[in-house]
Order: sequence, then C-alpha cells, then structure tokens
Amino acid sequence: MTDFRFDVLARDGAARRGLLKTAHGTVDTPAFMPVGTAATVKAMTPEMVADAGAQMILANTYHLMLRPGADRIERLGGLHRFMNWPGPILTDSGGFQVMSLASLRRISEDGVLFRSHIDGSRHHLTPRTAVDIQRKLDAAITMVLDECTPFPCEEGVAAESMRRSMRWAERSKAAFVTRPGYGLFGIVQGSIYPDQRMESAATLTAIGFDGYAIGGLAVGEGPETTKRITEATTPHLPADKPRYLMGVGKPDDVVAAVLRGVDMFDCVLPTRSGRTGQAFTRRGPVNIENARNIEDDRPLDNRCPCPACRSYSRAYLCHLHRSKEILGAILLTAHNITYYQQLMAGLRQAIAAGSVTAFADAFSEQYTAGDIEAV
Amino acid sequence: MTDFRFDVLARDGAARRGLLKTAHGTVDTPAFMPVGTAATVKAMTPEMVADAGAQMILANTYHLMLRPGADRIERLGGLHRFMNWPGPILTDSGGFQVMSLASLRRISEDGVLFRSHIDGSRHHLTPRTAVDIQRKLDAAITMVLDECTPFPCEEGVAAESMRRSMRWAERSKAAFVTRPGYGLFGIVQGSIYPDQRMESAATLTAIGFDGYAIGGLAVGEGPETTKRITEATTPHLPADKPRYLMGVGKPDDVVAAVLRGVDMFDCVLPTRSGRTGQAFTRRGPVNIENARNIEDDRPLDNRCPCPACRSYSRAYLCHLHRSKEILGAILLTAHNITYYQQLMAGLRQAIAAGSVTAFADAFSEQYTAGDIEAV
Repeated sequence: MTDFRFDVLARDGAARRGLLKTAHGTVDTPAFMPVGTAATVKAMTPEMVADAGAQMILANTYHLMLRPGADRIERLGGLHRFMNWPGPILTDSGGFQVMSLASLRRISEDGVLFRSHIDGSRHHLTPRTAVDIQRKLDAAITMVLDECTPFPCEEGVAAESMRRSMRWAERSKAAFVTRPGYGLFGIVQGSIYPDQRMESAATLTAIGFDGYAIGGLAVGEGPETTKRITEATTPHLPADKPRYLMGVGKPDDVVAAVLRGVDMFDCVLPTRSGRTGQAFTRRGPVNIENARNIEDDRPLDNRCPCPACRSYSRAYLCHLHRSKEILGAILLTAHNITYYQQLMAGLRQAIAAGSVTAFADAFSEQYTAGDIEAV
Repeated sequence: MTDFRFDVLARDGAARRGLLKTAHGTVDTPAFMPVGTAATVKAMTPEMVADAGAQMILANTYHLMLRPGADRIERLGGLHRFMNWPGPILTDSGGFQVMSLASLRRISEDGVLFRSHIDGSRHHLTPRTAVDIQRKLDAAITMVLDECTPFPCEEGVAAESMRRSMRWAERSKAAFVTRPGYGLFGIVQGSIYPDQRMESAATLTAIGFDGYAIGGLAVGEGPETTKRITEATTPHLPADKPRYLMGVGKPDDVVAAVLRGVDMFDCVLPTRSGRTGQAFTRRGPVNIENARNIEDDRPLDNRCPCPACRSYSRAYLCHLHRSKEILGAILLTAHNITYYQQLMAGLRQAIAAGSVTAFADAFSEQYTAGDIEAV
C-alpha cells in the first residue's frame, strides 16, 4: 500500500500543481471534488463521475452516520464497495451539517449533542467519534471535527470557537489510526480575522497533519473577504502539504483561490445546479429553462466533451428541465461536473506552463462575456 | 431505405418469433418497448436503454404535442435527433392520454376537443391531426387515433365507441403519408365483447394496416379477461402482420399474451416501478425498501447482467431508495428494463426452439416462488 503523500510538481506564483497519493489512487491537484453527500453524487453513476474527469469525491459523515449508519457501511465493506467508487474519498467530519441540519444541537467542550433531522434520534459527535466514523467509512482523507464559525461572528466569540476547534483538532489527531495511504486533515478556523487565522494555522502546524483545510469561509462573508482571508492564511500553512478550501465554490472563486495557493476544493454547486437548471459554461452560467433555449439546436458549449454537449441540444435540455424529467438532472449534472474538471485541468496545465495568471485573465474575460448570441 | 416489413421466423403454437424492419432499424419480436413519454425513458440515458437490450421505444403524442410541440420537434430534426435515440420509435395517437389526463374533453365524430393538463390550452385531435403530428415526430410506427373504451362499458356503448374508432381508423389510413420503412397500425377495440373484437379486427383488416394493435385492455378488466379477449382477437388478425397489445403489462401478462400470438408490448411498469422501489426479478417482484434488504450485500438477482446487479448490493439500492436519491431510480429502472428485455429474449429463443410452453411454465414456477431467502 502506498504512502499518503503530496508532491508539488510545479509552482506559478502562489499556485501549485501537485500530486496527492492515497491508498485508493492518485489525485492531480488543484482538484475539485464533486460532493457525494449520501454515498452518491446526486443524479450520477460513479462511471459518469469518473468519465467527467473527477478523481476524488467527498462524502458526508453526518448524513452517512444517520443513514445507513457507519457500522453498517463498515460491515458492508466500506464506502468504496458500498457506492462502487474505487477512487479516493474525503469525508468531512459532520460538524458543518450538524450546525446547519440537525436540531437541538448543544456544543460543549466534549463535542456536539444533536438530534437527527431524519428521525429525531439523539447522537453525540466528538473528535474521537467523528474520526472513528470516518475510519469505518474507509475514507482516504479524514477531517477533524471542528465548529464552522457562523458569519457574522464577533471577534471574541470567533476566537473562543476557533480555540475549541483547535483543542478538538488535537484530540482528533490522537484518535486517528495511522494507516498507509490514509491521511488526516486539520481545519483552520478564525472567521474573518487574519490574526486568528494565523494562530489557528500555527496551532495546527504544530500538531502536524497530512493536509490543512480552510474552513468557515464561503458562509456569507462575500467573495472579496473569502479571497482576502484565504490569502492571509495559505502562507502560514506548510508548503509541502495539500491545502483544501472547504465548500468553495463558484468557478471564479475556485480560480481565485488556486492563485492564492489552494490545492483542493469541494462544493455542491455543480451538482445542485444540475438539478435546478443552471449550467456552467466558458461563457458563464446559463439558465437552461430560459425561453431563448427553447428552439436552440446548438449544444450548451460546443467545445465541451460531456455527454450533454456531445449528443443533445439546448432545446432538448430545456424541454427536459421544463418537463421535470430526471434525464435533465442527469445531463446537466454531468455537464457541470465536466465543466469544473475541465477548469481544474486547465489550471493545472497553466501552472505547469507558468502561465496561470494569463489563464485566469482569459478565463475571467470569457466567463463574464455572457452567453453566446441567441439564434 | 428499407421497406417496412414483418417476417415471422418461427412459430410455436400461437406464439411467433419475428423480425420487424423499419426505416430506423430492425426489431426482434416478441418485443417490449420501454415507454419514453416526454421524449425520454424516465431516469435513463438512451445508451442505458439500448444497453438494457431494448431496440424500440414508445413516445407519447399527447405529451409531445403539448410540450415541446410537434412543429418544434419537426424543426429540430425529429424525435430521433431531439432525444438521441436513433432506433425505431412507435408513437401512440394521443387518444389514451386525452381520456386520462386532459380536462374538458369532448368527443365528436370529428375527433376530440380537449384542454392541456399543463397550461389549459385548447387542442383538437382528429384522425388526420394525430397522424400528421406523428409524421412530424418522425415515428417509424404511427398509431391511428382511437377511443380507448373505458371499463366497464355497456355492450351498446362499447359497440358505438368501437365503430367510431373504426371510422377514425379509415380516416387515419387516408391521412397517412406512405414512406419506405414507416408503418401505420390499426387498433382493435370492442371492450370485453368477443363479437365486437371480431368485427373490429375484420374492419381493420379490410382497411389494411402494417400492423394491428389490441387496445382497450389492461384497463381494469383483470388478467383473466385480458387473456380471454386477447385469445379471442389474435386469430382474426392477419398472420403476416405484427400484433401489439397496448399497455401490457406485468411480466406474467406479457408471457401469457406471447403464448396467444402477440408480438409487441409497451408498459410504464418497469420504468415507473424503478422510481417507486419495485424491482422485477426471476423470483418475482422485490420491494427494495423492505427492511430485509437493508444489510443484504447480494445483488438483486445474481444472474442479471444490468448495471445495478453487476456493481451494487441490495443494501445500497435500499439506501438510495430510502434516501430518495436519483441514482436509486436510475439503477432500478435500468434493472427493470433489463429484466423485461431478458424475458423477451428468453421467449424469442424458446419460440425458435419450439419450447415456449416449457419456458412459460418454468418462468411461472420461478416467478411465483418468492424472493431469495433473507440473509
């Protein structure tokens, strides 16, 4: 079994082109992980996800611990076998969903007590149980339990929350069972306060992790603040470890963060938008339901290699969405995942070629140019 | 371009093994057509439908004339190009859905006036417009407009309805534009009255069609009556033309009708059940949501070649269904279509081998044996 390791192959400014090696395969970075909340990337078969270019996916500890249960997944041979995804899987710690979905949650120094949003059952998530559940799921990358500090958050409250997350990070590290090819990531918190972010980064680095996530962003602070805090954080993270900006984001947010030294991303945007009729294209987002598409025989994007663009017109995709047909969600999701993966491939190539700034400028110019002329 | 033709390759009792040649390809019969109501077989890509073994699908005139519209589909190059299904497509006439879905419908000698169930718009479907719409859709097989006589129906009312359908059939024939490889099917009506079925069959045969459907069955009369009326009808249809039992049905109903000389079938059952958690297997229907499946690591059916049975456990399918995940609908629908296509392939092979009765007996014994033992 291979070691868990990260190699930076090339740098261009702060941006890095890397390789992440895990027990379940290698991931080219910068990488975007499609979200497979409940052990399925919504509306996709695993083959479609892989065909779209994704090498690694994210699954949700919170959802899976409640249904079908971590012990059950372990008995069924782990998440890879359960969901037929042989490649690397990163699981979050469940903390974020506990805050946003569960009811009657109570945070203490121990961890968080909450009730399931599905059946009201009581659960206790602690740094140790969160790590243990992720081991049962057989995640290549385990995330420490943290509190995703809400926004806005008063400075003192943010600091208190961040410091508790740091204590949880230490306990998570102690609970993590080292296995070849498996890694544990710490999560930087500290809201929008650069000093707190620095403190958090230093604390985590001292504990020592296989990778470092930036959490608590993209929660309403706005893209400029996200960029500013990302930029204030990445220089304080170890240069030889992967950096993961959690829950980000829109294509332009991803590009901006790559320029600031981030290596990994996850977001529900490409999959959720696939179900709500928003397609991402080189020329920006397209609302497929729009009347301008109703008799447009052209593909969404004539240079996109995805199944939707290869074989279907905008008119057909518009019809499927208006008719609420599942195939509409299937095709738009496949397109959106492909779009994101193509964007990441473009960024990787540009970093290797030393032209990532030009790539980002060209991306931005096209992305904001508006959709192709209507027919 | 090939002629529209039907060749009976083998007979076994009343059952026939045949080949239907159309402008868009050849179909092995007995054949089951998955239903693609709104120009998509629900939850499937066309590739999945073809991989499941289906050679021909059905699309709905009623739904497509309302959304996105027949003229629009014609301008977009026809249904094959629109939905990326290059193979043969049979379209129904819209009559059945007008009766079941539309509001304010009024039947006259001319045809039927109705309001769309989508937006309330007024439409007039006549024998001529129904045929014309299906030409615009570019259907390999056009169905005549008929009235699907409801059940139960008093004898005199049924006869009146049937005779109007026969006059419509004649007008449909007059409106049909003959094109190489395209065919027009008449539809036998007459409710549960064998004399009316005979009269209807004789009337249609005298008009002359490329195939003959049996309509107005599987509408609540019960499987024994369906069999009895099918058996009373098929001997009165031309032996050299395909016979199509509309809207049938459950696997055992399909087997029974093949034994009585039917060549073609369509039904929403495999696709609809795929979305409601019912899987068809050699051992009968399985409710995937059932607690007995929750930790069952075995496939639905270990001899089934479909994607769901190749790569996923009952436990995972159960989880997907309980979590209302789209992939659950995708995999179960793929399984159910594959099940039906495998059943048809078995019937075809048995007819060719002269063993269709033994096949039907073995099918019935297994199908009623109940699911495999729980783990």
